[in-house]
Amino acid sequence: MEPKVQEIPDANWRRKLHEVIFEAETFPGKVFDVILIWAIVLSVVTVVLESVTEVRDEFGEILFAAEWFFTILFSIEYILRLISVKRPWRYALSFFGIVDILAISPTLLSLFVPGFQYLLTIRILRFLRIFRIFKLTEYISEARIITTALKASAKKIGVFILGVVSLVTIIGSLMYVIEGGENGFSNIPLSIYWAVVTLTTVGYGDLAPQTNLGKFFASIVMILGYGIIAVPTGIVTVEISKAVNKSPTENCPTCGSEGHDSDAVYCKYCGSLL
Amino acid sequence: MEPKVQEIPDANWRRKLHEVIFEAETFPGKVFDVILIWAIVLSVVTVVLESVTEVRDEFGEILFAAEWFFTILFSIEYILRLISVKRPWRYALSFFGIVDILAISPTLLSLFVPGFQYLLTIRILRFLRIFRIFKLTEYISEARIITTALKASAKKIGVFILGVVSLVTIIGSLMYVIEGGENGFSNIPLSIYWAVVTLTTVGYGDLAPQTNLGKFFASIVMILGYGIIAVPTGIVTVEISKAVNKSPTENCPTCGSEGHDSDAVYCKYCGSLL
Amino acid sequence: MEPKVQEIPDANWRRKLHEVIFEAETFPGKVFDVILIWAIVLSVVTVVLESVTEVRDEFGEILFAAEWFFTILFSIEYILRLISVKRPWRYALSFFGIVDILAISPTLLSLFVPGFQYLLTIRILRFLRIFRIFKLTEYISEARIITTALKASAKKIGVFILGVVSLVTIIGSLMYVIEGGENGFSNIPLSIYWAVVTLTTVGYGDLAPQTNLGKFFASIVMILGYGIIAVPTGIVTVEISKAVNKSPTENCPTCGSEGHDSDAVYCKYCGSLL
Amino acid sequence: MEPKVQEIPDANWRRKLHEVIFEAETFPGKVFDVILIWAIVLSVVTVVLESVTEVRDEFGEILFAAEWFFTILFSIEYILRLISVKRPWRYALSFFGIVDILAISPTLLSLFVPGFQYLLTIRILRFLRIFRIFKLTEYISEARIITTALKASAKKIGVFILGVVSLVTIIGSLMYVIEGGENGFSNIPLSIYWAVVTLTTVGYGDLAPQTNLGKFFASIVMILGYGIIAVPTGIVTVEISKAVNKSPTENCPTCGSEGHDSDAVYCKYCGSLL
Repeated sequence: MEPKVQEIPDANWRRKLHEVIFEAETFPGKVFDVILIWAIVLSVVTVVLESVTEVRDEFGEILFAAEWFFTILFSIEYILRLISVKRPWRYALSFFGIVDILAISPTLLSLFVPGFQYLLTIRILRFLRIFRIFKLTEYISEARIITTALKASAKKIGVFILGVVSLVTIIGSLMYVIEGGENGFSNIPLSIYWAVVTLTTVGYGDLAPQTNLGKFFASIVMILGYGIIAVPTGIVTVEISKAVNKSPTENCPTCGSEGHDSDAVYCKYCGSLL
Repeated sequence: MEPKVQEIPDANWRRKLHEVIFEAETFPGKVFDVILIWAIVLSVVTVVLESVTEVRDEFGEILFAAEWFFTILFSIEYILRLISVKRPWRYALSFFGIVDILAISPTLLSLFVPGFQYLLTIRILRFLRIFRIFKLTEYISEARIITTALKASAKKIGVFILGVVSLVTIIGSLMYVIEGGENGFSNIPLSIYWAVVTLTTVGYGDLAPQTNLGKFFASIVMILGYGIIAVPTGIVTVEISKAVNKSPTENCPTCGSEGHDSDAVYCKYCGSLL
Repeated sequence: MEPKVQEIPDANWRRKLHEVIFEAETFPGKVFDVILIWAIVLSVVTVVLESVTEVRDEFGEILFAAEWFFTILFSIEYILRLISVKRPWRYALSFFGIVDILAISPTLLSLFVPGFQYLLTIRILRFLRIFRIFKLTEYISEARIITTALKASAKKIGVFILGVVSLVTIIGSLMYVIEGGENGFSNIPLSIYWAVVTLTTVGYGDLAPQTNLGKFFASIVMILGYGIIAVPTGIVTVEISKAVNKSPTENCPTCGSEGHDSDAVYCKYCGSLL
Repeated sequence: MEPKVQEIPDANWRRKLHEVIFEAETFPGKVFDVILIWAIVLSVVTVVLESVTEVRDEFGEILFAAEWFFTILFSIEYILRLISVKRPWRYALSFFGIVDILAISPTLLSLFVPGFQYLLTIRILRFLRIFRIFKLTEYISEARIITTALKASAKKIGVFILGVVSLVTIIGSLMYVIEGGENGFSNIPLSIYWAVVTLTTVGYGDLAPQTNLGKFFASIVMILGYGIIAVPTGIVTVEISKAVNKSPTENCPTCGSEGHDSDAVYCKYCGSLL
């Protein structure tokens, strides 16, 4: 997600622009980022408020003006971003590039396509743009620890989710047989929904077992859910622990490798003294 | 669950068959596995959709055809599996052997026994067959870590569940005395059900304390539940941590120290080659 | 809870009796324990079933007979226990001694005091007697790890609970001001109950914020509850981790002390080689 | 929060007063603290009970008297605190100084400003004063471990909360599009509230998806919530583990090794005296 060195263009003014927009070391770069964060937050608030009938009725025109103000602002920013990178297409197709275009296109399209109402909500994705701020804050190492841990857990979490999906399918089907349509469990997909609501301990109560056997079975499922919630917690805890312990160590002075334990004396890759 | 070497039959064509069906190293073996996964998923979707009245009314015939298609497919697969192992009975009585027969028998039996409606849901167990895929994926080591941790936790979780069962029995009985039948807590089993719903933080709300004393007592139970949910989490976390740390490392051949990362080349304590 | 050596009486037949009742090494001792477990479970089931109107109406007499059977059985057992220890009073006032008397007294008292109905539920406490079985099972070390971890966490959990009590009091009071009586938050104790239900993520839904401000505030409380649930989990996980790591190590051959880490080379108390 | 040495005044009688009020080493100091705790708890109970209509109707006068008793008591205490520190203004503007004034001012102001009803609830903040007791108890080290861990987690939890806020905003907006106003999801803020209730597994059930697509999407959100709750737990567990391990150990003076238990006398690696 972060532009590599080779992304910086050659022309001097484009390089300057790149520094302001993509970097946060210089003063104009920092100012740009702070303004951007506020614009993002306020534009999200605009979208959210627009959905409330009472607010729209009273402040509709202000919200409309604000929306266009932010759309034009983000459009200019998007064009500047495209200009200030070496390979604009590559940026346009990157994660943040797509988020950028999704953030402005609904409003722009609503000019040409009437009744674009619902798709306007896509604009909410502009909130994702706020994750750019990590590059300018002291929070970057914290964010890295969390994302490292989540990435390292991904495969295990994947296996776990496959297990949970199998489990809720089987539990839901059993509950469909036990309770049946007359108690609200009218088909298997609905019963699977109940199983998810129960196993994750959300428990809306819109669907609850009515028969004694159903209540007994539900009790077992809940106690099972107790044990199951421990699995992702365990996985993520272990990975965070690893990420935290690894993060503060220095690089190997000989081979430059990272990730040595805090009690390591020799580099584990090249064997030279740390 | 996985066939040992001695399960491989002697005859050449049966050995070939064994390789395709049970192994995933060869190309035909991989193709077979991928087809099988899709067949399992689609057959489960068939069972699930069949339970939805609207879908059954409209697409009933397609679902009927699909069901028979998958049943015949799985029947052939089951016979091939029996042929390709040395001791077919042993396979038939293994975990996956029983799951295999449960996956096809309801549909086959419905031919002879009319009104087999509800038992058809047993077919959902064919979902369990998807866990075969672990043998062909890169997820095998992740799955092994989770199952190792769960197995190692089993006894502790058992003691914990006995404690929880005692606790909900006592809490439920107390609540039955406090609230009584007029507030919905009409007998002890129902009150125990409430205790499980509350202690596991599911909280349907179909049964909630009405009296002041009941609400006070329920508050204590909930805060208790807070602490209790920590126990299985703690147990599983510790075991996952062990399983993760144990799985990939070897001791240093020079100084004998442990705890090297799986990607370490040199001992981090004495610097000699691992 | 376990009788010390000095509790064993001198007389030979009393010593024999002690062995059978309190120990589980001999064959009669094991038989006694197994019978006891079943008697406890069945007597608890009797109490639970008795509270269900439909069951009492139909099987009332059988349950009545069963109740008296178990009461007489447990009374004899209690007397034998008193005989087989050196200091009967000391046993009678111990934890299990009190549980024993609570398990039989309600039924016995109901003979003399009519209308003892509700107090009969005290009998459910006889379920606690099942924790005696830990002395005869292989689960003893698992149970010890859990209780050790919980004991070690007790003080920290205490501080945590004081914090939670303060928090729910303040949150409840704020919510009382925000929502007020017309939305169901009719007084502070009730609002505190809501705060407990929300912070522990139980969420019955019998009381939920109606105003926009209330919903906003409730959202903050829920996200707060997310972080708070992590505290007891963290405390207990760390203590279980300690208890697990300490448990399997050998005693010091010189000073006999326990609790050495698994990687210790020298005794940490007397300094001699392990 | 705790007064430094330079806060102790020079005059002898003020120094004595400081010792009694702020310290807990002397006997009068301990007596003062115990009385204070009880006064705080009882005054909080007064505020809580006053909000219950039935209690106010019957015991209104007693509660009124009690309230004034505690207000005068705390006012005297506040004045004494101001006198016994060197720089009263600094104390008055400290955390506990502000809590102190908030605890007494509502009742005092109600004399002059009629209809001060609702603001009286601010008095509940006097509960926070109970956290002073940590200085006199054996719980201080436990409290320090928890607060150290929470402080160390603060930044990571901050990043996590930013992620959760983004997530619930996007989930809420999506659900608003999926379900729409006719199913109760009448605007985005309300849908975000639903997303928080679901993701934190609280699940009131006052708002639940009605459409099939909504239920499917909600199921994904719940399983997602499963994984997400693991993140703060993991963060806090790792920090508590660090805080626990750090607090009591010292390095071996001979071999410099770390990680000795707090009760260790000899180094477990080289056997020399710690």
